[in-house]
Amino acid sequence: MKKVCVVIGSRANYSSIKSVLYKIVEHNSLELQLIVCASAVLGRYGDVASLIEADGFIVSDKLYFLIEGETPLTMAKSTGIGLLELSSSFDRLKPDIVLTIGDRFETMATTLAAAYMNIPLAHTMGGEVSGTIDESIRHAITKFAHIHFPANKDAADRIVRLGEDPSSVHIVGCPRIDYVNSILSNKPDDLSTIFEYGVGDVLDLSKEFIILSQHPVTTEYSNLEEQMQESLAAIVKCGCQAIILWPNSDAGSEKISHAIRRVRETKSAARMHFFKNLPVSIYVQLMARCACLVGNSSSGIREGAFIGTPVVNIGSRQFRRQRGNNVLDVNHNAGEIAEAIKKQLNSGRYPSESIYGDGHAAERIADILATTCPSIQKTIMY
Amino acid sequence: MKKVCVVIGSRANYSSIKSVLYKIVEHNSLELQLIVCASAVLGRYGDVASLIEADGFIVSDKLYFLIEGETPLTMAKSTGIGLLELSSSFDRLKPDIVLTIGDRFETMATTLAAAYMNIPLAHTMGGEVSGTIDESIRHAITKFAHIHFPANKDAADRIVRLGEDPSSVHIVGCPRIDYVNSILSNKPDDLSTIFEYGVGDVLDLSKEFIILSQHPVTTEYSNLEEQMQESLAAIVKCGCQAIILWPNSDAGSEKISHAIRRVRETKSAARMHFFKNLPVSIYVQLMARCACLVGNSSSGIREGAFIGTPVVNIGSRQFRRQRGNNVLDVNHNAGEIAEAIKKQLNSGRYPSESIYGDGHAAERIADILATTCPSIQKTIMY
Amino acid sequence: MKKVCVVIGSRANYSSIKSVLYKIVEHNSLELQLIVCASAVLGRYGDVASLIEADGFIVSDKLYFLIEGETPLTMAKSTGIGLLELSSSFDRLKPDIVLTIGDRFETMATTLAAAYMNIPLAHTMGGEVSGTIDESIRHAITKFAHIHFPANKDAADRIVRLGEDPSSVHIVGCPRIDYVNSILSNKPDDLSTIFEYGVGDVLDLSKEFIILSQHPVTTEYSNLEEQMQESLAAIVKCGCQAIILWPNSDAGSEKISHAIRRVRETKSAARMHFFKNLPVSIYVQLMARCACLVGNSSSGIREGAFIGTPVVNIGSRQFRRQRGNNVLDVNHNAGEIAEAIKKQLNSGRYPSESIYGDGHAAERIADILATTCPSIQKTIMY
Amino acid sequence: MKKVCVVIGSRANYSSIKSVLYKIVEHNSLELQLIVCASAVLGRYGDVASLIEADGFIVSDKLYFLIEGETPLTMAKSTGIGLLELSSSFDRLKPDIVLTIGDRFETMATTLAAAYMNIPLAHTMGGEVSGTIDESIRHAITKFAHIHFPANKDAADRIVRLGEDPSSVHIVGCPRIDYVNSILSNKPDDLSTIFEYGVGDVLDLSKEFIILSQHPVTTEYSNLEEQMQESLAAIVKCGCQAIILWPNSDAGSEKISHAIRRVRETKSAARMHFFKNLPVSIYVQLMARCACLVGNSSSGIREGAFIGTPVVNIGSRQFRRQRGNNVLDVNHNAGEIAEAIKKQLNSGRYPSESIYGDGHAAERIADILATTCPSIQKTIMY
Repeated sequence: MKKVCVVIGSRANYSSIKSVLYKIVEHNSLELQLIVCASAVLGRYGDVASLIEADGFIVSDKLYFLIEGETPLTMAKSTGIGLLELSSSFDRLKPDIVLTIGDRFETMATTLAAAYMNIPLAHTMGGEVSGTIDESIRHAITKFAHIHFPANKDAADRIVRLGEDPSSVHIVGCPRIDYVNSILSNKPDDLSTIFEYGVGDVLDLSKEFIILSQHPVTTEYSNLEEQMQESLAAIVKCGCQAIILWPNSDAGSEKISHAIRRVRETKSAARMHFFKNLPVSIYVQLMARCACLVGNSSSGIREGAFIGTPVVNIGSRQFRRQRGNNVLDVNHNAGEIAEAIKKQLNSGRYPSESIYGDGHAAERIADILATTCPSIQKTIMY
Repeated sequence: MKKVCVVIGSRANYSSIKSVLYKIVEHNSLELQLIVCASAVLGRYGDVASLIEADGFIVSDKLYFLIEGETPLTMAKSTGIGLLELSSSFDRLKPDIVLTIGDRFETMATTLAAAYMNIPLAHTMGGEVSGTIDESIRHAITKFAHIHFPANKDAADRIVRLGEDPSSVHIVGCPRIDYVNSILSNKPDDLSTIFEYGVGDVLDLSKEFIILSQHPVTTEYSNLEEQMQESLAAIVKCGCQAIILWPNSDAGSEKISHAIRRVRETKSAARMHFFKNLPVSIYVQLMARCACLVGNSSSGIREGAFIGTPVVNIGSRQFRRQRGNNVLDVNHNAGEIAEAIKKQLNSGRYPSESIYGDGHAAERIADILATTCPSIQKTIMY
Repeated sequence: MKKVCVVIGSRANYSSIKSVLYKIVEHNSLELQLIVCASAVLGRYGDVASLIEADGFIVSDKLYFLIEGETPLTMAKSTGIGLLELSSSFDRLKPDIVLTIGDRFETMATTLAAAYMNIPLAHTMGGEVSGTIDESIRHAITKFAHIHFPANKDAADRIVRLGEDPSSVHIVGCPRIDYVNSILSNKPDDLSTIFEYGVGDVLDLSKEFIILSQHPVTTEYSNLEEQMQESLAAIVKCGCQAIILWPNSDAGSEKISHAIRRVRETKSAARMHFFKNLPVSIYVQLMARCACLVGNSSSGIREGAFIGTPVVNIGSRQFRRQRGNNVLDVNHNAGEIAEAIKKQLNSGRYPSESIYGDGHAAERIADILATTCPSIQKTIMY
Repeated sequence: MKKVCVVIGSRANYSSIKSVLYKIVEHNSLELQLIVCASAVLGRYGDVASLIEADGFIVSDKLYFLIEGETPLTMAKSTGIGLLELSSSFDRLKPDIVLTIGDRFETMATTLAAAYMNIPLAHTMGGEVSGTIDESIRHAITKFAHIHFPANKDAADRIVRLGEDPSSVHIVGCPRIDYVNSILSNKPDDLSTIFEYGVGDVLDLSKEFIILSQHPVTTEYSNLEEQMQESLAAIVKCGCQAIILWPNSDAGSEKISHAIRRVRETKSAARMHFFKNLPVSIYVQLMARCACLVGNSSSGIREGAFIGTPVVNIGSRQFRRQRGNNVLDVNHNAGEIAEAIKKQLNSGRYPSESIYGDGHAAERIADILATTCPSIQKTIMY
């Protein structure tokens, strides 16, 4: 039995790997070790660890290592403590492979702990292009990883150009799309009850509504509040119902939250509802019904392509990420944003595109993990 | 005045950047901030911090963050604590640019702290190829760095192929060669007094002698002691005088030390002398006089090319590093090693090659640091 | 000039030492070094660091070391990182004396860093008795401290019984009372504007109102939410206007917050207003006007005695702390609490008692710091 | 089954608790959890973890947390990282009681982690008096501990005077004496082979020999090298054979080592042998045979009283520790030390005294651990 240790550090991480966890558990020759850490163990980010346990997985270790502050400084420090904690876990669990997801700052801690301790590293969502520090983190992880699971050919080609051995690069699709696929295949939930949670007005989801989801761009730390104000002003200008999501915990989160809190105290908040966290299955169903998703969340581009959600993508955060026809790109300017929203309201839902996966990534990943034995010593191919 | 913060984590780091420090201090529009840390603050690695101060530099911060143990686990942990300590230093010193050197495990802490805190990062010695975890670290640092100072065109081309903006890549030569050049331009020291230091016999340096310098390859952790035994056996077999250097502090150091201690207790140690640390100027002069340098130190390949030292390079540590005519590569096998040593004893000193620099890297680096203003947001070029 | 380094880790710390900071700055032979850390640097606890700077003090270092989670586990970890960060600060600032305040978990980090680094330690608020882990922390700090500044004779006697040298124990009064004294000597503020901050109804402060301030008792971690529900039920039962304060950041904080959030969503919240943080000057004025202060805050007992505030003190948190006539003690039971509140509403304001100080502690402390040179080696007196 | 977690951080810790470990394992209602950490996991302190496993115990966790440097600064930092690592271990092992030993700096990490996490703490060797920072640490641990196991009545009385509940204080004797007792009851080893280990001359143990064991006094950091030179000069002056032991890893260790290294290079080293670590059983047998034990090790006072070893105790480190007739106290002065040694050479072995135990502490400790259920909330008794 090969021990595969999956490290989950955020709610987004979990939905990006959940389908793979099921396939690892089912697999004859794989054993799952699960470390839940960073924001995924915190109540104020929705206690993802408990959701994971409720889904039937056994959590091997819960690690607390986020330093309060949400500044660039604490982001560096949290990664440092993450290295301390994760290395102890790996030392005890002795995994045969570590599987890490995406490009968040704490993912770097997983990567370094595994690499320094001579444990082969597998990586999903590599090879893509985006803005923020995630861009550097993602490619740096690629340079440490022994097995690559990019979502599509574009990403896979980039990994190979980065000097990785083509035989270590496996185009499997994004496991997140597996999950979206399974949600949309089920009977839809009665979404009217969701407004018992969160704060704000009860919206009528049978009518036109917008979702706003905007996260910090760490390299634009000083403009984050103004940027969020532009987005909120555009929403107000459109006059449509809106679901507003709080930002993730990256450095600068507090600034975006502040802009949200200010709008919440105005009359414009009348047709708005504010959620800290939405269960992914609810979020995906909302994406399938909303008139437009606004902001800089990668979900608009990735899941949006598969679901066909009309998206207004703002600013640099998703810069150069491969996108489908469903996305309109705009700057942090209330006028531009409002105009793009109107275009999308007119356009309606787009046809599904599978540029980020076909819904069957998990079984491919599990099989490759079971059969591959990468050499621990990497060497650039050129 | 632009504040350039240079982080020095080991004795090797210092000699690889010393010429640049002088040029930064001399430069009209640059201010030097110097952080000395990791093994460079420790007495048992020769108290490099004091050497630096004795050379006239002002040390802004001394940071202690190496966890005792010298295993892969403590290497990961030391990097984590390095992140905690370095981020505090950067927060206080507020540098405009951080300059990091090479590819040691603690260098990664400098890199992440700077990158996460939105401080532009300059990097020397990137783009080269080698073995061990250094290979991954080096390329990962490249993916975070904003200004690249490779030693030669081969390395520069590799950095560009890694997706870096060619305008950020400056072929300057290795500053270590500047230092070697200045040492060899001075009147030679009387080396006979060096045997008052270290442990073992007094050697006659007017006669043929060998230097052995072998460091841990972290990815071959379990074989390190046996490998060192092969090298020592080869030295014994050759019957020539030998200077044996203790290994650096990477994971596995203890195993190599153990092999040295065992040989020291045998009669074969009769014509050997053991040094923990040699001042670089002494080491370079010894390289210029020795009949052969044996082991896996990068100095054989880098400085060796410039000096013309005959080198027997063992195993994977310098794998694929660009080398001159002065290097013979062999496996960890006493017979092979002994045979290569004999060849080099016959060959004598080689002509100087400048593949790692011409001795003028420092002024180029200082000028570029003074004039470049890189964008903090990086994006891969393809 | 003697360098006195004061470490402030929370809003409460600041108001407990503010008068001393002024006297140190004014003193001829003292120089102030100020480290602000833990919750005192965090926006969500009111950014105390900025208040301190706005009051004219120069902050030498801001340190981030609270691990998110607010569990017993993260409390231990935060203290560990506090030790790492504070020791680096002390190493750089090289204080002649460190002054630490009270008994919070992060105060232990200040204590150990100073003690291990051979820096004499002065301590305010030692020798008192209370519940929670603070009880152990306080006495342990006494065993490390070289200069003791207890608030009253009762506390001073206890410090001497703990084996401390009587000549190191100085009864000075609590500097917090200095601050209360200065606030109440000034012209009162127009408090009606405070309801622009916080959340909830606008209260009429010319009519009877209650303050509820209840913090976690770490050793009763599992009952905290139920306990808070009892207190809130008692408030509702009394039917009077109420100001509800959010708890501090100790382990369990989240549970108390949860009880508050639930009551906020009910109709009972109609005559309530909720504050995250109140400026101390506002809080003291509210204490001077409120009909009753309910909960387990030490302010009811300490400042309350001086101000004459009627107090209903609930549960074990202030167990055995010396108290004046203004305090009624009750258990965590809605009925008991409600009955005690009614008694206090009838009683009205109490005469001032100076059992925690006379308002002139700061000048005494500054003078003693300037003139005392304690031996670094402590020995128990029996 | 009650889970008792014992934390061992040094070689000395192990021999101070070994007899208790056996009794816990044998006990019907106790389960042993063993954490080995700090210097006890390091090769250069003799890899105590492996000795423990060789003795048949199962190690639950090995934790690396010593920062290299051996200065007051790194001592503080090591304690901080110890808190991080130990709290994770306790979180996973969920012990019912933590048992901590003595008064070393890393012991404080065990104490705080347990206390903050609401785990009852038992403590051996409390209530004694000594010099160095250990003096403060020991009494501070007492203020956190829930069950006290002092070695004798003198120590027990002091614990009660510190305000501890008398019912929590159990005079059991020191478990180290149990171990000494068992060693001396066995057939003596052939000690002539020990000189195959360590460095230096082969001594004739049938003739008069001295043992020198001197450790750093952290509060006298700057004089440590000179102090050790005095001791070594005294040894040389006496002209007798000597076994010299290297110091423990406290801050300043490097300075004492330096003095040893210098003497080792002189002719005076002719009748000396130097050991890094001696197995305790060997050390005890040497104590039973040596003409005199010189230095500042607590073993001279504690085990020395039971064994009857003539001891010359130097300086402040054992200040006020209760001692038997076998000890002569002197200052750090070569002349004084030499004179005291001569007196002891004349005196010969002393009669055994049981002031530190009768050899049966372990069974008492195990029984009390099995039957006591201390309240987690402590309160000072006065």
